[in-house]
Amino acid sequence: MDYVYGPGRNHLFVPGPVNIPEPVIRAMNRNNEDYRSPAVPALTKTLLEDVKKIFKTTTGTPFLIPTTGTGAWESALTNTLSPGDRTISFLIGQFSLLWIDQQQRLNFNVDVVESEWGQGANLDILASKLAADSAHTIKAVCIVHNETATGVTNDLSKVRKLLDEYRHPALFLVDGVSSICALDFRMDEWGVDVALTGSQKALSLPTGMGIVCASPKALEASKTARSVRVFFDWKDYLKFYKMGTFWPYTPSIQLLYGLRAALDLIFEEGLENVIARHSRLGNATRLAVEAWGLKNCTQKEEWHSNTVTAVVVPPYIDSTEIVKRGWKRYNLSLGLGLNKVAGKVFRIGHLGNLNELQLLGCLAGVEMLLKDVGYPVKLGSGVAAACAYLQNNIPLIPSRI
Amino acid sequence: MDYVYGPGRNHLFVPGPVNIPEPVIRAMNRNNEDYRSPAVPALTKTLLEDVKKIFKTTTGTPFLIPTTGTGAWESALTNTLSPGDRTISFLIGQFSLLWIDQQQRLNFNVDVVESEWGQGANLDILASKLAADSAHTIKAVCIVHNETATGVTNDLSKVRKLLDEYRHPALFLVDGVSSICALDFRMDEWGVDVALTGSQKALSLPTGMGIVCASPKALEASKTARSVRVFFDWKDYLKFYKMGTFWPYTPSIQLLYGLRAALDLIFEEGLENVIARHSRLGNATRLAVEAWGLKNCTQKEEWHSNTVTAVVVPPYIDSTEIVKRGWKRYNLSLGLGLNKVAGKVFRIGHLGNLNELQLLGCLAGVEMLLKDVGYPVKLGSGVAAACAYLQNNIPLIPSRI
Amino acid sequence: MDYVYGPGRNHLFVPGPVNIPEPVIRAMNRNNEDYRSPAVPALTKTLLEDVKKIFKTTTGTPFLIPTTGTGAWESALTNTLSPGDRTISFLIGQFSLLWIDQQQRLNFNVDVVESEWGQGANLDILASKLAADSAHTIKAVCIVHNETATGVTNDLSKVRKLLDEYRHPALFLVDGVSSICALDFRMDEWGVDVALTGSQKALSLPTGMGIVCASPKALEASKTARSVRVFFDWKDYLKFYKMGTFWPYTPSIQLLYGLRAALDLIFEEGLENVIARHSRLGNATRLAVEAWGLKNCTQKEEWHSNTVTAVVVPPYIDSTEIVKRGWKRYNLSLGLGLNKVAGKVFRIGHLGNLNELQLLGCLAGVEMLLKDVGYPVKLGSGVAAACAYLQNNIPLIPSRI
Amino acid sequence: MDYVYGPGRNHLFVPGPVNIPEPVIRAMNRNNEDYRSPAVPALTKTLLEDVKKIFKTTTGTPFLIPTTGTGAWESALTNTLSPGDRTISFLIGQFSLLWIDQQQRLNFNVDVVESEWGQGANLDILASKLAADSAHTIKAVCIVHNETATGVTNDLSKVRKLLDEYRHPALFLVDGVSSICALDFRMDEWGVDVALTGSQKALSLPTGMGIVCASPKALEASKTARSVRVFFDWKDYLKFYKMGTFWPYTPSIQLLYGLRAALDLIFEEGLENVIARHSRLGNATRLAVEAWGLKNCTQKEEWHSNTVTAVVVPPYIDSTEIVKRGWKRYNLSLGLGLNKVAGKVFRIGHLGNLNELQLLGCLAGVEMLLKDVGYPVKLGSGVAAACAYLQNNIPLIPSRI
Repeated sequence: MDYVYGPGRNHLFVPGPVNIPEPVIRAMNRNNEDYRSPAVPALTKTLLEDVKKIFKTTTGTPFLIPTTGTGAWESALTNTLSPGDRTISFLIGQFSLLWIDQQQRLNFNVDVVESEWGQGANLDILASKLAADSAHTIKAVCIVHNETATGVTNDLSKVRKLLDEYRHPALFLVDGVSSICALDFRMDEWGVDVALTGSQKALSLPTGMGIVCASPKALEASKTARSVRVFFDWKDYLKFYKMGTFWPYTPSIQLLYGLRAALDLIFEEGLENVIARHSRLGNATRLAVEAWGLKNCTQKEEWHSNTVTAVVVPPYIDSTEIVKRGWKRYNLSLGLGLNKVAGKVFRIGHLGNLNELQLLGCLAGVEMLLKDVGYPVKLGSGVAAACAYLQNNIPLIPSRI
Repeated sequence: MDYVYGPGRNHLFVPGPVNIPEPVIRAMNRNNEDYRSPAVPALTKTLLEDVKKIFKTTTGTPFLIPTTGTGAWESALTNTLSPGDRTISFLIGQFSLLWIDQQQRLNFNVDVVESEWGQGANLDILASKLAADSAHTIKAVCIVHNETATGVTNDLSKVRKLLDEYRHPALFLVDGVSSICALDFRMDEWGVDVALTGSQKALSLPTGMGIVCASPKALEASKTARSVRVFFDWKDYLKFYKMGTFWPYTPSIQLLYGLRAALDLIFEEGLENVIARHSRLGNATRLAVEAWGLKNCTQKEEWHSNTVTAVVVPPYIDSTEIVKRGWKRYNLSLGLGLNKVAGKVFRIGHLGNLNELQLLGCLAGVEMLLKDVGYPVKLGSGVAAACAYLQNNIPLIPSRI
Repeated sequence: MDYVYGPGRNHLFVPGPVNIPEPVIRAMNRNNEDYRSPAVPALTKTLLEDVKKIFKTTTGTPFLIPTTGTGAWESALTNTLSPGDRTISFLIGQFSLLWIDQQQRLNFNVDVVESEWGQGANLDILASKLAADSAHTIKAVCIVHNETATGVTNDLSKVRKLLDEYRHPALFLVDGVSSICALDFRMDEWGVDVALTGSQKALSLPTGMGIVCASPKALEASKTARSVRVFFDWKDYLKFYKMGTFWPYTPSIQLLYGLRAALDLIFEEGLENVIARHSRLGNATRLAVEAWGLKNCTQKEEWHSNTVTAVVVPPYIDSTEIVKRGWKRYNLSLGLGLNKVAGKVFRIGHLGNLNELQLLGCLAGVEMLLKDVGYPVKLGSGVAAACAYLQNNIPLIPSRI
Repeated sequence: MDYVYGPGRNHLFVPGPVNIPEPVIRAMNRNNEDYRSPAVPALTKTLLEDVKKIFKTTTGTPFLIPTTGTGAWESALTNTLSPGDRTISFLIGQFSLLWIDQQQRLNFNVDVVESEWGQGANLDILASKLAADSAHTIKAVCIVHNETATGVTNDLSKVRKLLDEYRHPALFLVDGVSSICALDFRMDEWGVDVALTGSQKALSLPTGMGIVCASPKALEASKTARSVRVFFDWKDYLKFYKMGTFWPYTPSIQLLYGLRAALDLIFEEGLENVIARHSRLGNATRLAVEAWGLKNCTQKEEWHSNTVTAVVVPPYIDSTEIVKRGWKRYNLSLGLGLNKVAGKVFRIGHLGNLNELQLLGCLAGVEMLLKDVGYPVKLGSGVAAACAYLQNNIPLIPSRI
């Protein structure tokens, strides 16, 4: 059943799906259950309450949809918008591109704001568009919080600030797939209307649950939004929420118990500690890249991502080869460069339930691979830089202090 | 984490989600993997090939969509039809009702053919509608093979016969959620254009995978179908099939390995033996119901379902009470009566990876519950009838003979 | 890896190893850990404290030895006795026979008190031997609380009474392998000096942990006992208990976490409720046997065991055939007749984490098998008798009331 | 249930128990089974056949005993020797010390040949003792192949050579606990009479199975050996081997299936590749230690162990502090210094199912810890040295080439 065996652990450093912690694997190791029994609604109730904490919202309404991030996108859009509605959407990498493609195929009038890959969303253009839109033709601003393809994090607080500045009523829709529960995210404070993530990202679960959270304004919008939807329709969920049975169709029992365990782990570590850990690992990775003499695909420090680092290789090297050899020799899974940066970057995901020594093992592996493909890296240099930083930034493991 | 503990095993007799066999639970007990590594496409390839066998098709194209049965419905409809298209759809119970609701919300022109709950699809009316439709305004005939709410199995071969008789080009769309891989189903022979099931039914997996299979004619239709779709769009899958990477978005690694194990078990038992086992358990259940002096919700033998039996209780009994007490006292999960038959029937699912003694334990439990709510059942009578039949119909366990 | 596949669950009704509850399987689903880290001693401490509750002792010292019941026997004997010591030991079935064999091979002077198989220990003879032993040559009275081969439970309180009556200082050693945590057992009240069980019995864990509990008097005896021992020596354990690291050699991490989960389940149900459940299932089984017109191997009601029932078949039937066919046809595991009762009895274990419908499924299976081998059983008769009793004796599931 | 939570994986680098590969964890994730059913003997038969391969014996008889390494020692000794028998045993570290202690407590006449800790067995003294023993009073030569406390591997072929040279009939008993299946070991070629290991070592299983293999000469010796034994008696096993039911008492079903999976993985990688991998990881570790400017506890290269490296810290550092902080900060489990070398060494286990990047992560962690406790290590230096070696010694993963 394991088609390609290699000794030892797989070193999973793609920015999703990420490593599942053992307690979560355990929690999911179970038979099916009747989701109409008293147990499942009781469990679901705790999940809906607690999942709001990772969005930092008290007023939002969460939906745990049996789907992927792509489905969560569709849920966010179709419940709040009508065909022909104008959206502003930022194209800064592969995943924002795919979201824009979806918006177009769902028949919205997408106003694409493009940046060079490696840059963040161009908020100056947003400002000018908002300024020009006194007629409020813009129905939604759609932004990917953290572009996984390039390792770029956008500053969402600035988007809110602009919307406020121009008193613009557009909905604020955020793809938080590779950010929520790993990077600083504040749904209520930033006035986000729909935020979403996927179970296989910072929550460190298997794929299969799209987690969407809607503000009261978004819920209101869903009452009149005319996009066709059934599977993704919030209305059906809300109906069953009222009845206290919660599920319009069959959920994955295993993912529900898994989510419970995942949230418990996050709260045990402390959400702020989780975010600080991602920052620590992000910093360490960037210091290693610098020590190797390589460039970060992310062009400015303000956009640096703490969940994924896209490393630019010299033109004479094919980054795909690094990823391939990593898997073959070291059971290491790195992220490929996608689309415009295919062959030019490889990506190190440092997302989810991960610690220092796992990352350092990965960095050591990357060094060997770089050397192997002909890049004159000084072996140990990246690890040394990362260690120097980490050794002075002792991790906070509450239960072990 | 187990909100409501009871000693011993849970006796899961809802018609889905069903019991997961131990080897499948084991196969799914794993960390995430990079789905872009060579291992996952290699695995996927075997799945796409082998899953066709449970549909009995060689020409169909399967899609393993991270969704539920409801999503599989939506995939079947939106990929083949355009808004305003006329469909014929049979209303015979809660699940056909929900599918019709979906068809209406997706803006098809649904021509509903209603039967009394407990009866099968009215094929005489289908015949007359097909006869009258020389203009071929009917674009699709949509039918639930096995209505889970009432335990009614429709004869699909007759639908095909009528379509052929009237040389009608309508697409033939089949909900096989509680039938495929448990009841006799022949996609190619019966000319089914889209057939679908969910992982948590006869395949005995967790919820989370909608399995949809499209005929060449359905694939052709998808090229011109104008229903809005992105997440459910076959086109994206087909693009990645061609590339050999198979996945337009992240699949559940666990469900892929689980499906591999589930198919292996089914092939080891033999698909025909699996179907024969469902027949044996269905017969045994019906004999028990008869011995109890109760009525089967299914009105005629020709519609008897081998995956679920809906048992009608006398008017002075509330069937909900039986289900409630079963769970409280005996850790037994029975199916509730839904909608029109709420309170009037309870349902015994005999679907999936199940054997004789599990069913007999359930039947004994039902007898105690019937007595407990005031029905004058003769204790042991149903079990005796089931045993008499089963004792003469020895199960075929190939590896144990 | 599953050498002999059959659909559905295995129905495990041997009196050990027994069914493991899902939460325990989950708890054990884990990687190894360093047993010298702070976590393992912290866990062990709770186990040593809590395991005393199932022995009903506050003064006893428990040892969790990586061995089986046979090893636990050896631990009990070699730590408390010296070669040549006279023991009184009751031969009433296969397991008491094996313990006696061990005692003899360990060079004790075993005074065997034999009863017919199906009878309990002959306490009259014990009384006379104690009466005659004013010289206190008897160093230990060794008794199997529940003889698994014949389904006979001895009354331990009477043994204590006799020892007290004759003011005899002999050690009181009890094999509680198939009794402790399932039948009424009171180490302190009954003045038991060493009691022992195995993990795969009432605790419903995998095999691999022999749980031995020593009274202060037994500990005292261990200081002078001259039987050769190293692996089983309590002294090494006590040394590490003092150091707070607990383990003289490597324990199974998985069994430790499993034991934690097993104890948690038992305490959640309530030890008295667990014992009551075994009584309920024992009664139901005996009523079924009676309804079948068959004899219980246990000759008097006072010896009836609530953890296993040995059923005598008529002379023209080979009980082995019933066990074989049960496994082949119904995935049912019954206990064989052993030694003197081989071919004459089969055994139904009703031990461990088990509930009503599981047992009823087993009983229905036995009825079919009885008929199949030519015994004129009335199908349904045993189930009816068991149901009649169980229906009036509603199980107590605290969390579900 | 996880008493001390930390994010990410535990980095388990004690020399046992070691990391369990995922496929083995999966194989063990199961309910109990009746060990008297046809399935368990069928499985056992394959295990007894295949386990001989890791001992490199065709003539040996293996025993899979539910015990630990300490129990396996006892089994080896008590089955082959009688009280008062003279053994030669080498004291070179904590585990050889414990084995000698056991030999003494079992009443053998132990002729201890002591070396300084960090040195191998003194074979010159063995030679002189053999030379002097024309009366053949030496009944057994007992040697620990790989002393886990100091990281010293003895050359067993030389022992055999000496025995042959002096035509000495003494039994050759080998503790291969931390060597067999990881280091070169050849039972038949080296004329080893009893070899033993534990499941939690190179086989990468949980603790709980002592694997003992006896030569025909050892089996012959067991017929007359007068050491008292019951639980550990080979005779009972041999009796059940003959009957084809294999087990004199209840085995752990989970460990049997786990062993099957463990052997399958080893054979898939290839035993020689497994040994080569241990050599590669051992070399890399020693190069790192050298780069740090620290001493290997092992005094000569000929004794270097490929399964564990004991690193000597400068006198001003307490090695215990390194181990403690490793666990607290980095979820890293290193081995403590034991007994004579307590506080003076810490140990890096590189044993079992492990790969390059896991080791490199560990080495990076050790560097941070060394710095943290005040040792002036150059961060990255050890990793650089290990990487330089590993990068030129590409791992052989057969299925990935």
